[in-house]
Amino acid sequence: MGGKVYGVGLGPGDPELITLKAARVIAAADVVAYPAPPDGPSFARSIAEAHLSAHQLEIPVRMPLDPATFPADEAYGAGAAAITAELAKGKTVAVLCQGDPCLYGSFMYLFDRLSTDWPVEIIPGVSSLGATAGMAGRPLALRDEPLAVLPGILDDEALERLLNATEAAAILKVGRHVARLKALLSRLGLLDTAVLVERATMPDARVRPLKDVMEDRAPYFSLILTRRRGTAVF
Amino acid sequence: MGGKVYGVGLGPGDPELITLKAARVIAAADVVAYPAPPDGPSFARSIAEAHLSAHQLEIPVRMPLDPATFPADEAYGAGAAAITAELAKGKTVAVLCQGDPCLYGSFMYLFDRLSTDWPVEIIPGVSSLGATAGMAGRPLALRDEPLAVLPGILDDEALERLLNATEAAAILKVGRHVARLKALLSRLGLLDTAVLVERATMPDARVRPLKDVMEDRAPYFSLILTRRRGTAVF
Repeated sequence: MGGKVYGVGLGPGDPELITLKAARVIAAADVVAYPAPPDGPSFARSIAEAHLSAHQLEIPVRMPLDPATFPADEAYGAGAAAITAELAKGKTVAVLCQGDPCLYGSFMYLFDRLSTDWPVEIIPGVSSLGATAGMAGRPLALRDEPLAVLPGILDDEALERLLNATEAAAILKVGRHVARLKALLSRLGLLDTAVLVERATMPDARVRPLKDVMEDRAPYFSLILTRRRGTAVF
Repeated sequence: MGGKVYGVGLGPGDPELITLKAARVIAAADVVAYPAPPDGPSFARSIAEAHLSAHQLEIPVRMPLDPATFPADEAYGAGAAAITAELAKGKTVAVLCQGDPCLYGSFMYLFDRLSTDWPVEIIPGVSSLGATAGMAGRPLALRDEPLAVLPGILDDEALERLLNATEAAAILKVGRHVARLKALLSRLGLLDTAVLVERATMPDARVRPLKDVMEDRAPYFSLILTRRRGTAVF
């Protein structure tokens, strides 16, 4: 009887976008771990809340706001140690992960620490890419169109090279980069068909043509979609 | 009382990777439509089967094997006409779509024909990207790494430009392109860390280092993942 870890994708935020498998695995786990801010509630936990029960041990992996004083590396190390202690007792541990664990997911840092010693199963989740495009009512990409998935923090030179080489792009983690990205897309002739989606699938979600967005910042959970053909299917 | 269309992402193939929302919407729909081959059963229907019931009208959208004799355009037109006839009676129609509807999904061709006249809600699904990476136990991309999503049918020149410009790539619809892609990745120095995943999340799924694959062809539902850092997280 040995311990096992599940890296569970929870989807983009709507609790109904959890998969049947994720719901089953979370409910059956002895221990549930999740990323959390230094104080206060975990967003990942709130998505999964309906599937938790009082007898489960919970391990919040508290992530630092200021990496200079407490590196993320130490936070993941502490989380992995707490999880390992439970695995050693033969417990199953579900690690909650917003979105999809393998697509820019924090779970991979725990996976890296745990998977050499313990069996780990990754349960994929709905990513913010499809959720964003679905809310905007447009394709991410079709047929033979290449799609670039681009963190908004990339510099203009890197973004320009990839935006020029692809038919379509999804720019993630837009946050404080909105004004810069808008100027770049305008220069590349991509602004007219670009859309900004904030908090896709959450109650306060919002979809706007990027050219109508006048703020310099967007929420952390925001994506910009571009596609040369815009919403056109043919 | 008017009709409504749902474009329902079913995920990559494991019926348990359907979302709670998709399961609810499919079960509640008056009509269920799905892509199907010219004869025989629909793979999308088989994923959703547990949520269907005998009182529902089913509309298979039969896709041609030979686009020269019966263009896909006509198949989607016929499907949209059959769905429209039900919407006009005030019915709700769930259109099933393997994977995520907006990511190379056939649903977008029906969306294009239906969304000007009828309300359409897209329910995102788990895409084959995350499912593939999860089975391979590796990140698609982390932090500020750009990710290219590339249909395998693209020619070597287009693939080379994008593979050289990105940290990581997922090559879709690998099928008959395996040998060519393997040669290209070898030339670009990306073969050693590349993995081929066939039929992710299905019972006969298989994960292999691409350099160990000797066949010229892979199943249609196959992806190649490349990442300069391979599985390394830091």
